[in-house]
Amino acid sequence: MEHLGRHVIIELWGCGDVINDVERVRGAMLDAVEAANATLLNLYVHGFSPQGVTGVAVLSESHLSIHTWPEFGYVAADVFTCGDTTKPQAAARVLYDAFEAEHSDIKELTRGTRPAHFHRPSLTAPPAEFTRTMAGV
Amino acid sequence: MEHLGRHVIIELWGCGDVINDVERVRGAMLDAVEAANATLLNLYVHGFSPQGVTGVAVLSESHLSIHTWPEFGYVAADVFTCGDTTKPQAAARVLYDAFEAEHSDIKELTRGTRPAHFHRPSLTAPPAEFTRTMAGV
Repeated sequence: MEHLGRHVIIELWGCGDVINDVERVRGAMLDAVEAANATLLNLYVHGFSPQGVTGVAVLSESHLSIHTWPEFGYVAADVFTCGDTTKPQAAARVLYDAFEAEHSDIKELTRGTRPAHFHRPSLTAPPAEFTRTMAGV
Repeated sequence: MEHLGRHVIIELWGCGDVINDVERVRGAMLDAVEAANATLLNLYVHGFSPQGVTGVAVLSESHLSIHTWPEFGYVAADVFTCGDTTKPQAAARVLYDAFEAEHSDIKELTRGTRPAHFHRPSLTAPPAEFTRTMAGV
């Protein structure tokens, strides 16, 4: 097992007015979920007053989230997927296009990469030998 | 403006059976939202067959997500908050305790830090002077 999930962290700047439109954000999210080849479990999108939209799509393969700051032309998006058949970077591209971004910063993290030292049984409880030493035996 | 949001990325290993219990995960998420001093807009939690739980809390201040792999004792959690009054690291601590993790890897990213070169008006359209030069004027 190399890792369990891929997490694409997307910063978009210089976005268009679309990022303040709840229905267009919802549409972009649905398109992105499809591009990611993911299965939608639930979609919740909320418009703030006076501006800004937040939406989260819960997926069988994790989630896709959007938070927009129209006053700065900025969108923070995350696409987190597991499995071998998903395409989180394709979803990122859909969002970049849909939000008419002028500038992007896209990073991908791996999630669920087991720490090497976690295999040692001594991680939380000291081994018996250590306990004995500490007790002065 | 230094940045618009804080995003705490949480890897938990060696977690207890709680991570396969939809209601206990839901409870931990609600406790974490409270610890973060955030406002809940929507909470969706789903249990998978044969195992695993996914939950996303949409917040006025962004989101909190949980994805669990009980077969590996692993949880991927994210706490993304904006504003000066939220405490995403406090939420991370609540999740670490609630899921009885033996090992954690917790990173914090800043989100919405405007790229320095984005301030230049020439990013998408060249300035008038440049256009004139290019035209041979």
